[in-house]
Amino acid sequence: MKEGDVFENRFVVNELIFDGFRNAFRDENPLHTNDSFAKSKGFESAVMYGNILNGFLSYLIGECLPVKNVIIHSQTIKYSLPVYLNDTVLLSAKLTGVFESVNSFEFKYTFTNVKNQNIASGKFQIGLI
Amino acid sequence: MKEGDVFENRFVVNELIFDGFRNAFRDENPLHTNDSFAKSKGFESAVMYGNILNGFLSYLIGECLPVKNVIIHSQTIKYSLPVYLNDTVLLSAKLTGVFESVNSFEFKYTFTNVKNQNIASGKFQIGLI
Repeated sequence: MKEGDVFENRFVVNELIFDGFRNAFRDENPLHTNDSFAKSKGFESAVMYGNILNGFLSYLIGECLPVKNVIIHSQTIKYSLPVYLNDTVLLSAKLTGVFESVNSFEFKYTFTNVKNQNIASGKFQIGLI
Repeated sequence: MKEGDVFENRFVVNELIFDGFRNAFRDENPLHTNDSFAKSKGFESAVMYGNILNGFLSYLIGECLPVKNVIIHSQTIKYSLPVYLNDTVLLSAKLTGVFESVNSFEFKYTFTNVKNQNIASGKFQIGLI
């Protein structure tokens, strides 16, 4: 892996993912589980859990890099737009720093929707194990 | 909610949570799914997905605050120690900043294990909807 490398994957936020997250973590907040509540707050429908995007980061780091012997050191995420059920999102991560002395790789990433709007963005740092 | 308020919840990283995350996000990285691989890298056994902790943050924010009409603006997390299957973790979040002009509340949080060691820590910002 070298600076400038880009790793991407497309995800559909389907019911399997939403239900899997809901059943695992038991967050029943009405913003995520009640369309009427979400609409009353100005959203199109129930808003997907933001942390579903962090699950997609886990997949990208665990499965889409050229090496498997990695562990996450840190992450940041800033949410910009809501995601709804069955939305397709593109995760694109660029390797922005290689710090061999501390065995660390830093990436900047964005999630965009099919209109190419920024949904969320942030950084993550990983190390080799 | 006022500055200094603390919100806590204890979680057990059980099979339901691990399998739910694995089935939803399909991260089959051997660090998380292969005990022998994880042991060969110096861990006790397969390491739980770090982003399971972000699922617990979702629960705390969605379910354990005195208000339900909240949405996450941003999060950070820094991982310090691995988490293993059936570990109990305590999430403790302290309200460190109320910014009424931008409708934003900032929290600092830690995850600790039963030995009171820091597992992970970070910040999150939420807004009222």
